[in-house]
Amino acid sequence: MEGAAGGIGLDELQLAARNHGMPLELLREEVTPIGLHYLLTHYDIPAVDPEAWRLTVGGRVAAELSLSLADLRRREPLEVVATMECAGNGRARLEPRPVSQPWLLEAVGTGRWRGVPLRSLLEEAGVLAGAQEVVFAGLDHGIENGVEQDYARSLPLEEARRGDVLLAYELNGVPLPPQHGFPLRLLVPDWYGMASVKWLSRISVVEEPFAGYQQEQGYRLRREPDDPGEPLTRIYPRALMIPPGIPDFMSRERTLAAGPCRLSGRAWSGWAPVAAVEVSVDGGGTWREAELAAPGELGRWAWREWWYRWEAPAEGRHALMCRASDEAGNRQPDEPVWNVGGYVNNAVQRVIVTVTAPGG
Amino acid sequence: MEGAAGGIGLDELQLAARNHGMPLELLREEVTPIGLHYLLTHYDIPAVDPEAWRLTVGGRVAAELSLSLADLRRREPLEVVATMECAGNGRARLEPRPVSQPWLLEAVGTGRWRGVPLRSLLEEAGVLAGAQEVVFAGLDHGIENGVEQDYARSLPLEEARRGDVLLAYELNGVPLPPQHGFPLRLLVPDWYGMASVKWLSRISVVEEPFAGYQQEQGYRLRREPDDPGEPLTRIYPRALMIPPGIPDFMSRERTLAAGPCRLSGRAWSGWAPVAAVEVSVDGGGTWREAELAAPGELGRWAWREWWYRWEAPAEGRHALMCRASDEAGNRQPDEPVWNVGGYVNNAVQRVIVTVTAPGG
Repeated sequence: MEGAAGGIGLDELQLAARNHGMPLELLREEVTPIGLHYLLTHYDIPAVDPEAWRLTVGGRVAAELSLSLADLRRREPLEVVATMECAGNGRARLEPRPVSQPWLLEAVGTGRWRGVPLRSLLEEAGVLAGAQEVVFAGLDHGIENGVEQDYARSLPLEEARRGDVLLAYELNGVPLPPQHGFPLRLLVPDWYGMASVKWLSRISVVEEPFAGYQQEQGYRLRREPDDPGEPLTRIYPRALMIPPGIPDFMSRERTLAAGPCRLSGRAWSGWAPVAAVEVSVDGGGTWREAELAAPGELGRWAWREWWYRWEAPAEGRHALMCRASDEAGNRQPDEPVWNVGGYVNNAVQRVIVTVTAPGG
Repeated sequence: MEGAAGGIGLDELQLAARNHGMPLELLREEVTPIGLHYLLTHYDIPAVDPEAWRLTVGGRVAAELSLSLADLRRREPLEVVATMECAGNGRARLEPRPVSQPWLLEAVGTGRWRGVPLRSLLEEAGVLAGAQEVVFAGLDHGIENGVEQDYARSLPLEEARRGDVLLAYELNGVPLPPQHGFPLRLLVPDWYGMASVKWLSRISVVEEPFAGYQQEQGYRLRREPDDPGEPLTRIYPRALMIPPGIPDFMSRERTLAAGPCRLSGRAWSGWAPVAAVEVSVDGGGTWREAELAAPGELGRWAWREWWYRWEAPAEGRHALMCRASDEAGNRQPDEPVWNVGGYVNNAVQRVIVTVTAPGG
């Protein structure tokens, strides 16, 4: 892999040691096995007693709800296979590097989430006139830039009422693991992961835009520090490649034998279906369209496989690249676009490979 | 947290993004949930077809074996709850920092492993006279310091014949996750994790000491580069503390209210039972003995809980520390002991906490 990311400090290393990405060879799996999905935890992973736990739904509703896990499991379930990505994916490739969790490219994963549609609970509680947003608060508690807080985020009411927004109690067929929000998390398909509040405890319907830290200060796209910025919402397109060949332990650079090589990976966008994936095997000099799988049984919230037949030439060092565009007209930039928080850096991946003579 | 670990480079960051530690609040769990156990993968996580996979046992044996997963699952199983730690845990605290996976303190976990005792297979194959070691090779393949290799390690014959050395096919009651060695791994309780070869494919009984890369070059304790060094084997004692209070997102420093505070954590040693855990609440000025749980039902290969009642004084910043010793006379050093590969740095943990006035 190429690119700058030197001089990572202790704060960033502590975050990198706690949080983890999906090793890119796992792009081979449609659904990411538990323990390999990316994970970002703002504070500590809370210990929650599922017997004592309740979800409350309150605020501008006709009837407040207080629900146990058993109450939720008795309702009509919905399953959604969704690709989730951290809004900070790619941050460590920006220069100067915004100091936070130093993601390279691995902050992604696809889960088979099962739970109750949020919409059905909002209908049951009865959203009152004047309601604007729905606020979700988790049990994870800590301090960020001097502000003590439960992690909390809101959704506009129309997003909260989408049929695919889940209150998930299962991942890949088992109860939510502690690190993914046990016993219940919000799951907002197509949005960056910050929206999908873990360890969910309280849902409040409100009349004013939510001004909590993670809405007003965190997770905004700012071009300069004084810029109030735009809130992050949906995931911009990205294609990633399974690094071909075998890795060097330290540099992670790849070696493979000359000859036919199937390059493949997955691509996604939260704005619209992926329109095309292109591949370059000469460092971006020329691009060719890759084959793209149909959306298939995973459904419309999951990444799609792509592949490209490369005839790896006899010898040499090559920069392999891939890039996606979506039907809304979004396409990955060749170079990172800097911003204060280090968000949405979906610049194209470069995989450096050394091709050796066959049998060499 | 205090201490030096600045200037992490891209190579180290790439490793940190792939591998992950156990967030220290998970010390509250006797057995580490899947996805939170530490993980170090030298090359790529292999994709293994369990139907085609076979384990071969060969070399200096009377009868070679070739076993399917079903063959192994039909045998008398053994379950071992074992604490595993990476030999490189603590590496990023050394100065100058050896460049490799930059662990701070989190490279540990405890699993409930189930499988077949290695001893029973060795007996079945019939180890011949003259045998010295048993070599274990995995399906993970890559390049390290210019050497292309399958990851492979050996055990002296007497260690391989210990009754607690497992060929594990389950972790915490489910089939081994891909990242922990699916479909089969070696599990050597009490030894650093490098001995517990994942994605196990071949077992060979040999007459000469194994000279593979991970035995002769990697995982040796060298005081200087020309020193041939000593091989790493058993885990030196360590106590870790659940960081009390709540964290700051970026610095991970802790804040808690004045008053009674139960400090607790777990301690382990691969050399002998833990003899004592001591706690300092004044940065190492004075030490007091903590309470230490009996080995209990987890058995002798698992960490043991400790706790200490601290009356957090009205205000101020404090360095909390803990240290373990074992019945073989090993004790944690106050300061790191440097070595070329950055191994076995079991210097005491320091947790920085700020105590606020009650209700403040």
